[in-house]
Amino acid sequence: MSLLSSPFTPPPRLLMGPGPITCDPRVLQAMSNQLIGQYDPSMTACMNETMALYRDVFVTENRWTFMVDATARGGIEAAMISVLKPGDRVLVPIMGRFGHLLKEIAERCGAEVSVLDVPWGEVADPEKVIAAIKRVKPDLVALVQGDTSTTMCQPLKEIGNFCRAEGILSYCDATASIGGNTFLTDEWGIDIVSAGLQKCLGGPSGIAPITISPEATRRIRARHHVEAGIRTQAHQNGKGERIRSNYFDLAMIMDYWSEERLNHHTEATSMLFAARECARLLLSEGRDEVVERHRINGAALAAGLSAMGLRLYGNQQHRMNNVVGVYIPDGVDGERVRRYMLEDFGIEIGTSFGPLVGVIWRIGTMGYNARKGAVLPTLACLEQALRLEGVSVPAGAAVAAAMASYADAGAQSDE
Amino acid sequence: MSLLSSPFTPPPRLLMGPGPITCDPRVLQAMSNQLIGQYDPSMTACMNETMALYRDVFVTENRWTFMVDATARGGIEAAMISVLKPGDRVLVPIMGRFGHLLKEIAERCGAEVSVLDVPWGEVADPEKVIAAIKRVKPDLVALVQGDTSTTMCQPLKEIGNFCRAEGILSYCDATASIGGNTFLTDEWGIDIVSAGLQKCLGGPSGIAPITISPEATRRIRARHHVEAGIRTQAHQNGKGERIRSNYFDLAMIMDYWSEERLNHHTEATSMLFAARECARLLLSEGRDEVVERHRINGAALAAGLSAMGLRLYGNQQHRMNNVVGVYIPDGVDGERVRRYMLEDFGIEIGTSFGPLVGVIWRIGTMGYNARKGAVLPTLACLEQALRLEGVSVPAGAAVAAAMASYADAGAQSDE
Repeated sequence: MSLLSSPFTPPPRLLMGPGPITCDPRVLQAMSNQLIGQYDPSMTACMNETMALYRDVFVTENRWTFMVDATARGGIEAAMISVLKPGDRVLVPIMGRFGHLLKEIAERCGAEVSVLDVPWGEVADPEKVIAAIKRVKPDLVALVQGDTSTTMCQPLKEIGNFCRAEGILSYCDATASIGGNTFLTDEWGIDIVSAGLQKCLGGPSGIAPITISPEATRRIRARHHVEAGIRTQAHQNGKGERIRSNYFDLAMIMDYWSEERLNHHTEATSMLFAARECARLLLSEGRDEVVERHRINGAALAAGLSAMGLRLYGNQQHRMNNVVGVYIPDGVDGERVRRYMLEDFGIEIGTSFGPLVGVIWRIGTMGYNARKGAVLPTLACLEQALRLEGVSVPAGAAVAAAMASYADAGAQSDE
Repeated sequence: MSLLSSPFTPPPRLLMGPGPITCDPRVLQAMSNQLIGQYDPSMTACMNETMALYRDVFVTENRWTFMVDATARGGIEAAMISVLKPGDRVLVPIMGRFGHLLKEIAERCGAEVSVLDVPWGEVADPEKVIAAIKRVKPDLVALVQGDTSTTMCQPLKEIGNFCRAEGILSYCDATASIGGNTFLTDEWGIDIVSAGLQKCLGGPSGIAPITISPEATRRIRARHHVEAGIRTQAHQNGKGERIRSNYFDLAMIMDYWSEERLNHHTEATSMLFAARECARLLLSEGRDEVVERHRINGAALAAGLSAMGLRLYGNQQHRMNNVVGVYIPDGVDGERVRRYMLEDFGIEIGTSFGPLVGVIWRIGTMGYNARKGAVLPTLACLEQALRLEGVSVPAGAAVAAAMASYADAGAQSDE
């Protein structure tokens, strides 16, 4: 059987889609470390160090900052299922595909969900969100910071602060935005934030960093139960309405990440190593410096695409730094151009979801690929791919505009 | 901040506990491969290849054999939440900690759970399980094959075949046993089986292989809904009672692993690479050969421990091949011995759960560490650690007995 004869060898790709993106080679190295036992002192030290590092990534003092062993979507579900009880009211501003996802997950938790629909390509006006909060009186407000489906970046400070003042819990999915765009958990008053590694953190999908405020912790711990097979006389019997999921029961996951180290799952050790290294690399470079690097590269990419005669998608005032939506020119087969890019040039750019399928491409410049050496080849090759498709494109304009954008940014930072 | 100055470097350990165990270095190499996009033809080919490989691991023709992106416990929850509706009846024979876990997960799904309690250290008598099935008339019978908490291996064939004949769904958690003990999904009539990589498959925790029979698939697909943000006119509107979890909705995960490749989560690419390599290595060596290797090494380990004067835990007729429970001698501080082993000899052996805490150690010989070069050093060092603790141990007896056990096995295989 030929599958058995050799290990899988992926082809070389430059991943310039909306994520996952090319992994930082230092993160791959971290994952190639040999395993250690889950209660080895070096393992629990690694877990504690990872908690400390992600407090800095999320800019928070939250004690309960740890990992959920699932992809980013699992982090969202863990947050919702652990705070929501059936019948709770949730408000979700929806500006794209991932707002729909928050609504759907909240509904499956048994919540009554109200939405605030925002046209795709725009963000929710904080004043309108606050008005909706006053009207709906939700138990939880759930938002996406950066919705890759539309490339938009939702302003959060006013909304978070309003919720905090009113005693309403807030949740934010920062998967696509964290690292590439400013996120100030405590200053903005967001109660729970979850993320993934596969965007601006430059790692693989498969583990979800999460941070939980003291008030959200209090509500989650009020539903704390210890599993029968590991409960001892020292444990109190369970109290409160049991959280509907065992795997995503954040109260039990806290026990595992606490000094008690009460077993829950077996930590995904290799993914933990990846998560720790992603945070270490980001913080070593500097949180603000990494955001600025994403801004500079996103601006250069956008300038290059515009100079090629392409029209950018969505309100550019609110575009995430790390992904650009661009209209597929009339008469162009978007998928054929993507195939030229992938198969002939080895560069992946993104398709899109739902109403935007066939309408826009999404091109990311994030994490390890938020660099000139990734942006310029993408623009150079896209110019050629469009030419292969028969589109008339000004020769060299995209790269020249991107170079000029980089020069501007350099001049500004020299001032 | 010193955390930023260097990557995490785990200390060298020989992991001889109940899992995770030392990862096969070839699996670490597979994980160090660079990422590819989730719809790259090479990625979807890798997914399809992984499905094919795990059909052979599970010994099944089931089309729906794929990965859940969570630790093994997430695979259990995905199976239960996708087939169970609130009020469904579930029967769980409980012979250890992981039987309690199945009960707890089923309860959180809203099921009415009946249990068949078995003394720890024994397995459930299939006749008694069948009698309980006749009495309870469950919608689902859920069992653990190998419960590491007690080291026991549950016989499944009669129970599975009875359920199949009666049209009752069966689920089995094979996390701790698969690879090291025979598992015949189709021949035994088990509808859903899930597992993890971190035991006999020689990989890291963090992804859960699962296989689903046509009948279980039919019941799951009857509750199929497509997410709002990615639904198109070509999709039927949802039908059936919606599965309570989005992340663990196996109907949607099937869409992702189908030719439609409808987006759900972003596949945990590095863990997928690990899973594929684990299966490739196992099948290259040969499924029966790997089971036999576990049997031989487990027998040698058990012989060595007995020769040292230690008493083995549980019914040895039903012990898993890959883990041995052994009583901590009277007056010995079990945790101090484990610390000697870990800190002075670099070898991890396992503690235990619930009623067995402080009563037994659990020593594994599984996956990459089901080999003489792991078993003999473990016995040699345990002899020394016991001596350090003041226990009188016959010098060299353990290693001699293990060597004799290996020689017997070799002689038998030469016949």
